[in-house]
Amino acid sequence: MPPLAARHPEMQTLRRLLRRRSARSESARYVIEGPRLVVEAIDAGVTLDAVYVPTDAEGADLADLADRCARAGIAPREVAAGVIEQVASTQSPQPALALAVPRPATLRDALALPRTLLLVLHDVADPGNAGTLMRVAEAVGGGVVLCGPAAVDAYNPKVVRAAAGSLFRIPVAVEDDLTVVLAACRTAGVRTVATSLGGTDDYDALDLTGPVALVLGNEAHGLPAGVLAEVDRAVRIPMLGSVESLNVAMAGAVIAFEAARQRRAAPRRP
Amino acid sequence: MPPLAARHPEMQTLRRLLRRRSARSESARYVIEGPRLVVEAIDAGVTLDAVYVPTDAEGADLADLADRCARAGIAPREVAAGVIEQVASTQSPQPALALAVPRPATLRDALALPRTLLLVLHDVADPGNAGTLMRVAEAVGGGVVLCGPAAVDAYNPKVVRAAAGSLFRIPVAVEDDLTVVLAACRTAGVRTVATSLGGTDDYDALDLTGPVALVLGNEAHGLPAGVLAEVDRAVRIPMLGSVESLNVAMAGAVIAFEAARQRRAAPRRP
Repeated sequence: MPPLAARHPEMQTLRRLLRRRSARSESARYVIEGPRLVVEAIDAGVTLDAVYVPTDAEGADLADLADRCARAGIAPREVAAGVIEQVASTQSPQPALALAVPRPATLRDALALPRTLLLVLHDVADPGNAGTLMRVAEAVGGGVVLCGPAAVDAYNPKVVRAAAGSLFRIPVAVEDDLTVVLAACRTAGVRTVATSLGGTDDYDALDLTGPVALVLGNEAHGLPAGVLAEVDRAVRIPMLGSVESLNVAMAGAVIAFEAARQRRAAPRRP
Repeated sequence: MPPLAARHPEMQTLRRLLRRRSARSESARYVIEGPRLVVEAIDAGVTLDAVYVPTDAEGADLADLADRCARAGIAPREVAAGVIEQVASTQSPQPALALAVPRPATLRDALALPRTLLLVLHDVADPGNAGTLMRVAEAVGGGVVLCGPAAVDAYNPKVVRAAAGSLFRIPVAVEDDLTVVLAACRTAGVRTVATSLGGTDDYDALDLTGPVALVLGNEAHGLPAGVLAEVDRAVRIPMLGSVESLNVAMAGAVIAFEAARQRRAAPRRP
């Protein structure tokens, strides 16, 4: 089979999936960019419809990818030189693409993690922040829930990149309505903790060793006022100087790692 | 005086200062973008050669800026409509610019902070990371040292923006040679703690209440191997799952806020 050209329908599909959220949700597919990330997806058992590599491909990462594909029974398709550059979402793309099937978690899956530690991102709109918080969630043994009308798409290419593989390995649930998430937490016995500049407790004064959901808000507007009345606790991160707030990814990381620190220090309950 | 046009020499200078590190270091000037940030600079006592606002300016932020300029004895200069867009470093610039004089701290200033908590950024090259870590440093009562041949310029417009005013308020020292920084810490009785994937201690197992300098490395390469032998301690952040490392700004924030937490918990020593 000759290498695929840029105008081949499959290449046009990949291009569209990388650029349009509607295309991703309508076809229930997304694109993973870069040989290392495709390897991580294979290792995590993500279902891939196809893997694409350039016909002039070289290098250790691509050799590694070829090896993993062979072991997973995937025959990578060759694309003509320069095509990946036309399809990819970045200016200097890494030479591999995969067409992947999303594997969204249910809220129930996410809440069922042992010693639940959920990051609930309400209207977090920046893909770098959402991806970074997926990485943080994995590092602390937790999961992520994306909610709110302004929430970034979990399969946005910048989210996929910033998550650095964590998207493939942790439960990532999507639930538009935060109220539904909070109710599910209550039913599951998971304490809800919102972070807010107007929080009443210092984040580190709270016992975070039990099941907990950290609710983080939009980059510019924070959490809607109503949310603070609905959660079990609202916490703040004490700050010196004239710093008004931390970036949401920073704030999430600081509190999530404080929870991890407390859990390492506290003996696991039966 | 008529509003300045885009080809006016002052506008050309601002354009160059925003784009070239060499222009900034040769003239010992940098540019602050956006009315809020210019207000923060005035409030922090940063020396401004000039403030520029568009002739068609409107809005609360610009009214606030006009007010602060008046109180500070600065007469803002008017620039023609559309000029800021041509000069600025961002695609949708905020309507104000200031020509500012850097106020670098000496290493000595930075080390003389009460309960020293320094973030030493070695070859941290991404401006967003450097700016964010300045914000973290202010929030924990600390300062920043930029060092290493690949270090980003402290007055890069993206650093200025990401620092969100902290650059104007905390000591930010620049010292090319990390060895000089480590020697100065030793002399000043400041413990040096490097963060590294190969660190021997968990970061939260260390007493961080005394004077401490956290040494953070390059985004891609971390710290040179030699550094780990030269510092007092090398720490790691324990992580679950398959997460290999955190972004340097994340790692710096997690450890800096752990130090702040310990300091709030521990009584201040005399």
